[in-house]
Amino acid sequence: MSYQPVRVAAVGLGRWANIMARAYTRSEKIQLVSAFSRSEQKRNAFSERWGCQTEDSLEKLLSRDDIEAVIVTTPNDQHAPVIEAAAAAGKHVYVDKPIAVRMDHAKRIEKAVSDAGVVFALGHSARRLAGMRQAKEMMDSGRLGGVSMIETNFSNERGLEITSDNWRGQRHMAPGGPLTQLAVHNIDCLRYLFGPVKQVFSLLKSMYTKAEQDTVTMTLCEFESGKLAYIGSNWATPGVFFMNVYGTEATLFYQLDFGWWSQSQVVDEHSSLILREFASMTDDPDNRQLQDVSVKLINRDMFKEQFEEFADAIRGVNNGPEVDAATGIHNIAVVLAALRSSQEGRPVTLKEIIEEA
Amino acid sequence: MSYQPVRVAAVGLGRWANIMARAYTRSEKIQLVSAFSRSEQKRNAFSERWGCQTEDSLEKLLSRDDIEAVIVTTPNDQHAPVIEAAAAAGKHVYVDKPIAVRMDHAKRIEKAVSDAGVVFALGHSARRLAGMRQAKEMMDSGRLGGVSMIETNFSNERGLEITSDNWRGQRHMAPGGPLTQLAVHNIDCLRYLFGPVKQVFSLLKSMYTKAEQDTVTMTLCEFESGKLAYIGSNWATPGVFFMNVYGTEATLFYQLDFGWWSQSQVVDEHSSLILREFASMTDDPDNRQLQDVSVKLINRDMFKEQFEEFADAIRGVNNGPEVDAATGIHNIAVVLAALRSSQEGRPVTLKEIIEEA
Repeated sequence: MSYQPVRVAAVGLGRWANIMARAYTRSEKIQLVSAFSRSEQKRNAFSERWGCQTEDSLEKLLSRDDIEAVIVTTPNDQHAPVIEAAAAAGKHVYVDKPIAVRMDHAKRIEKAVSDAGVVFALGHSARRLAGMRQAKEMMDSGRLGGVSMIETNFSNERGLEITSDNWRGQRHMAPGGPLTQLAVHNIDCLRYLFGPVKQVFSLLKSMYTKAEQDTVTMTLCEFESGKLAYIGSNWATPGVFFMNVYGTEATLFYQLDFGWWSQSQVVDEHSSLILREFASMTDDPDNRQLQDVSVKLINRDMFKEQFEEFADAIRGVNNGPEVDAATGIHNIAVVLAALRSSQEGRPVTLKEIIEEA
Repeated sequence: MSYQPVRVAAVGLGRWANIMARAYTRSEKIQLVSAFSRSEQKRNAFSERWGCQTEDSLEKLLSRDDIEAVIVTTPNDQHAPVIEAAAAAGKHVYVDKPIAVRMDHAKRIEKAVSDAGVVFALGHSARRLAGMRQAKEMMDSGRLGGVSMIETNFSNERGLEITSDNWRGQRHMAPGGPLTQLAVHNIDCLRYLFGPVKQVFSLLKSMYTKAEQDTVTMTLCEFESGKLAYIGSNWATPGVFFMNVYGTEATLFYQLDFGWWSQSQVVDEHSSLILREFASMTDDPDNRQLQDVSVKLINRDMFKEQFEEFADAIRGVNNGPEVDAATGIHNIAVVLAALRSSQEGRPVTLKEIIEEA
């Protein structure tokens, strides 16, 4: 520790705010000072659990000179107005993924933090999983040979429980359902591994849910590099998170036990990374043996890590957060392109989505 | 054994003819009598290995009254003329998948065997894998709850080795590359599990190959039932075969070691079927445990089984082969729809493909 902890306030105090607080309160680089939600009950519960002050309005919170940064975990459609207010008040901003669910909102956020010159960090934590980092290293080192495509899936049972009363059950608040809420992580991982997406084709369905919301989604992406990816995301099934990477020399199979997703200090221990390659290679295709080798994963802590990177950026110790607003815009543009693709039955380019906002 | 073995001849004596002979020569229900290939060298090698006679023309072979049936493993584009000749000569026909690679050929085959009243069997063996049979039983019994989607992949390294001299390296002989040669099995499995496909969207790429052939393919299918499937098939990577089935109560993960694919008497021993379900269910989504349970697979023998079903059908012991010409037409129509979808950048219905031929 070479600096005074960054003094932060939490804005939006639902379930995820508590998961995030569990991560940043483990860090010496961050000090939780205060918190705001429109719900007095949530303010009191959060304050009691984490031992912080509260404010009964966002304005009061943002007017406090002793608060340097805000951790925003409001519903998706409130990210833009909250972040604009925070940036205008000179506060650094962490916001959980997705950056927003409308392209105009995403661009307002990019402009607000840029104009204010504050540090902006976006919580696409999944690229910080040990398996993702080590898969990237193996790709970059040439260990897999030439990589052509990736398959990935992020699913859970949320769609079986939501109703239209819940914001997650509303298409304008969570477009694409699990695609916005879960697979936007995989989209960011693909951005990290394969660069920008060029175009998207998607099929979205509302199945096994009481909400008027899509719960079953399959999306194909073609990247600017020409490589391909499939993203499955299903809100009507027990938890799944996997990624398969196909190379000419080897294939990688990564997966984690979703039951541990929200406990980032141990999730890597509940993950596996398998490398498949040839154990023997002969001219006879019926006489070749494959072998699956388990790759040792070095434990990380994705949530804590992203908050410490945010604090380091505020103190000028690094060159800024890895996931910036432009990346967030790319990622949500893939979601919005998928939604339009499914509605119109055609592939949709990211250019079309990003440029029209 | 309640009947005299069916006397068969092999037509087309490449690598796969030998894999098939290894299977049907294990059966008491089949007796290999003779064989034909245009290549004298292949005829002699096959005859020596399997202890059968040979003929130096298809006409001579088909004129023999003591041959009841033919096992056709010629290149795809020769299926139609060979089967038309065999059916006209009153021979029962087994042909390896795909039925053909042109819709007009597929329909000629359907008409020829129907007009001649011979037994017709199509070698979509993968639906006979233990994992496929047991997955179907679990779906039908309701064990998985409501099933919404399937992901499946069949890949190997063939594209790294083929050249345009080889028929597999030519788009008109193997359209879609691995989609025709490998994933047509998965298409048939999906037909078996989910019923007929309604429409297809696909991206096909030529990567890491010397041939002018697609090697990297990703396909989305929407079924007439509204369910969804993804099919990955990649000819530029070590062998992969998996299927994931997503249900509201449980998820199934099936895979096999491709190194054992061509040894059907043991391939099920080199397979695994995992059932994922909740070990505990609470109202708190952060406090639910998942468990993966290994399902015991009952060993089968997919190649031998399909030949014994063929022999039983010829002797009138069953109601005819499970996979008929109409199913073969459906399956290759999915491949041809994928090819057109990729070329034209739009979803393509099966109706469009099937009706225009």
